[in-house]
Amino acid sequence: MAELPDVLSRTAALIEAPSITPATGTVFDCLEAMLAPLGFAVHRFLAGEPPEGPVENLFAIRQGLAGSRHFAFAGHLDVVPPGEGWSSAPFTADLREVPGGRMLYGRGAVDMKGAIAAMVCAVEQIPEEAGTISFIITGDEEGPAKYGTVPLIAHMREVGAIPDFCLVGEPTSVHRLGDMVKIGRRGSVNMWLTAKGAQGHVAYPHLADNPIPRLVALLAELDALVLDEGSEWFQPSNLEVTDLEVGNRATNVIPAEARARLSVRYNDHHTGQALVDRVTEIAARHRTEVRATLHGEAFITLPGAQSALVAAAVEAETGLSPELSTTGGTSDARFLRALCPVIEFGLTNATMHKTDEAVAVEDLEVLTRIYRRIAEAALA
Amino acid sequence: MAELPDVLSRTAALIEAPSITPATGTVFDCLEAMLAPLGFAVHRFLAGEPPEGPVENLFAIRQGLAGSRHFAFAGHLDVVPPGEGWSSAPFTADLREVPGGRMLYGRGAVDMKGAIAAMVCAVEQIPEEAGTISFIITGDEEGPAKYGTVPLIAHMREVGAIPDFCLVGEPTSVHRLGDMVKIGRRGSVNMWLTAKGAQGHVAYPHLADNPIPRLVALLAELDALVLDEGSEWFQPSNLEVTDLEVGNRATNVIPAEARARLSVRYNDHHTGQALVDRVTEIAARHRTEVRATLHGEAFITLPGAQSALVAAAVEAETGLSPELSTTGGTSDARFLRALCPVIEFGLTNATMHKTDEAVAVEDLEVLTRIYRRIAEAALA
Repeated sequence: MAELPDVLSRTAALIEAPSITPATGTVFDCLEAMLAPLGFAVHRFLAGEPPEGPVENLFAIRQGLAGSRHFAFAGHLDVVPPGEGWSSAPFTADLREVPGGRMLYGRGAVDMKGAIAAMVCAVEQIPEEAGTISFIITGDEEGPAKYGTVPLIAHMREVGAIPDFCLVGEPTSVHRLGDMVKIGRRGSVNMWLTAKGAQGHVAYPHLADNPIPRLVALLAELDALVLDEGSEWFQPSNLEVTDLEVGNRATNVIPAEARARLSVRYNDHHTGQALVDRVTEIAARHRTEVRATLHGEAFITLPGAQSALVAAAVEAETGLSPELSTTGGTSDARFLRALCPVIEFGLTNATMHKTDEAVAVEDLEVLTRIYRRIAEAALA
Repeated sequence: MAELPDVLSRTAALIEAPSITPATGTVFDCLEAMLAPLGFAVHRFLAGEPPEGPVENLFAIRQGLAGSRHFAFAGHLDVVPPGEGWSSAPFTADLREVPGGRMLYGRGAVDMKGAIAAMVCAVEQIPEEAGTISFIITGDEEGPAKYGTVPLIAHMREVGAIPDFCLVGEPTSVHRLGDMVKIGRRGSVNMWLTAKGAQGHVAYPHLADNPIPRLVALLAELDALVLDEGSEWFQPSNLEVTDLEVGNRATNVIPAEARARLSVRYNDHHTGQALVDRVTEIAARHRTEVRATLHGEAFITLPGAQSALVAAAVEAETGLSPELSTTGGTSDARFLRALCPVIEFGLTNATMHKTDEAVAVEDLEVLTRIYRRIAEAALA
């Protein structure tokens, strides 16, 4: 491991720079101080207004020889709030000897400051002439993501820096580092349903119009929908009712309004708008209104050259043949896929967003070697 | 109308004695001062503790000759809160000339201080030798009704004062004084349903157990139930879902618990417990728990001598042949029916519980005459 002296200290430095979403300032100074000595031209800018912003974004590029390929690492420096109950201070990198090795504790250890440190250490070992490498790093991936990767992509288009391939360092591994790579993500849309009626006394239901039975019938119909049976690379689409609300405290009153909320995670058989239209059509039969917010369409980088080179790098360092998956939530890959093929691979996600988030030091070292192989293969 | 000089002033005096549930004190002093000069022995007592009590109750009796029949007037002096937006002070009796006559405004005008004033004025004209007359008056009919008519009945049993017939002065008339008499009431039971599951992320529904689809399926099944087609004297029983609650603010979280509330108004085909058992059995199939509160069983005083004498009194004074009905909410008749046959008849209910509650002065006078006829016929 002598060739990888600093992935631990770089991870620790990033953890100790507080950066709850939206992140700005110190944590970006810290990353810039790592990249600039490696020959990167660093462009930083703020976007957005309170409360969603300001968000800091960083695009760093090291040009290879003219005509060389362009490989990009993408990720985020912002972290979710630490919450209560940590066994050490969440913004202090705490190195502990545990059975089987050493663990580094701190918010962001796996999601995803450890991965960003590994990216930097990987690039440190790749000569400039190997090709063009860039870093696409935002301070708002965990939040509304309105002023993060979206304006970063606009900036890259503006300066004509379009990668041939992008690797997002999200923690995709499940049980062991290398067991899962994400080649796509399902789409995500939330819908708010409102059934309106007319208030009245329960003893005189014919004088009222109870909206609850209509909402219940609608939800039963939606729960019974089979959106699809899955597709080649995606699990079946899923609709979940996540909230119900009436707020009627009077036991003898029929309420005037009833509300529900849905979350649909869907595969490449659908678009968000088509799902909203379908739910709206069903809801209209139950005199219920629908309002929707689309968070990202389903997308996939079909198995091919990119997934093969990532899998080969993982297998070379871990012996594992990673599962190519499209499961889980959304990530900034939903935006980056508009630029170029995108694949996600990173640390194990068991402790992400949780109390006592921690990364195995050995995983940081192995990830650095995997990232180096991926970058070199992508530039070859 | 010369023979009925004081029903208006007595109604006004009762309105001006504030008596929001639970009622005590002044308003009972006021009624006692009306009854004592008419030869009534008045027994008053307090029952219950805060917040439901203390409640004041009054039982007044004027004994007829030995072996004479016993007729009871029943009612309540408590009123619901006035709310906002009155055109005159709600606890000031405001007499206004309106097209068609005079109206007296004030909280309790129709529900049911006007009726109690009419009862007193009716009795004033009935000689003591006509028979035994009693007043069963509580200060908690509009509230939980726990410390009102129930202990009054216990007192009457204790002193051996069991009427042969009881008339409750609730405002049963709908469009015109005399158009409706209540000969029974439906039963009422509320149920609280709780479906428990396991919280999780919407992107991983297989790791969670969403209780909402189970609750929705249960409610759809309950909404589809036909409890009955009505019975000879009752409309069909009705189940209303009156509230839904999850309280999950996170759009990407599957909640751990979902709740609903039902109100069932049921006829003489059912008992409250049988309905609770039936809902509990269906709910168990959807892994949902049921908690219930029973407010009163369905009951009826079958058309016969009592309803005939009430209808005859109404028709003699108004020319209307009243509908014998079992519609609407519950009343203290649900308790009194354990003592003797009970029928309800009183003023028009259009403004009860509302802003600007008001009674036509002419209705007070006609009601006094009807009550006198009813009492005399019941004692004959």
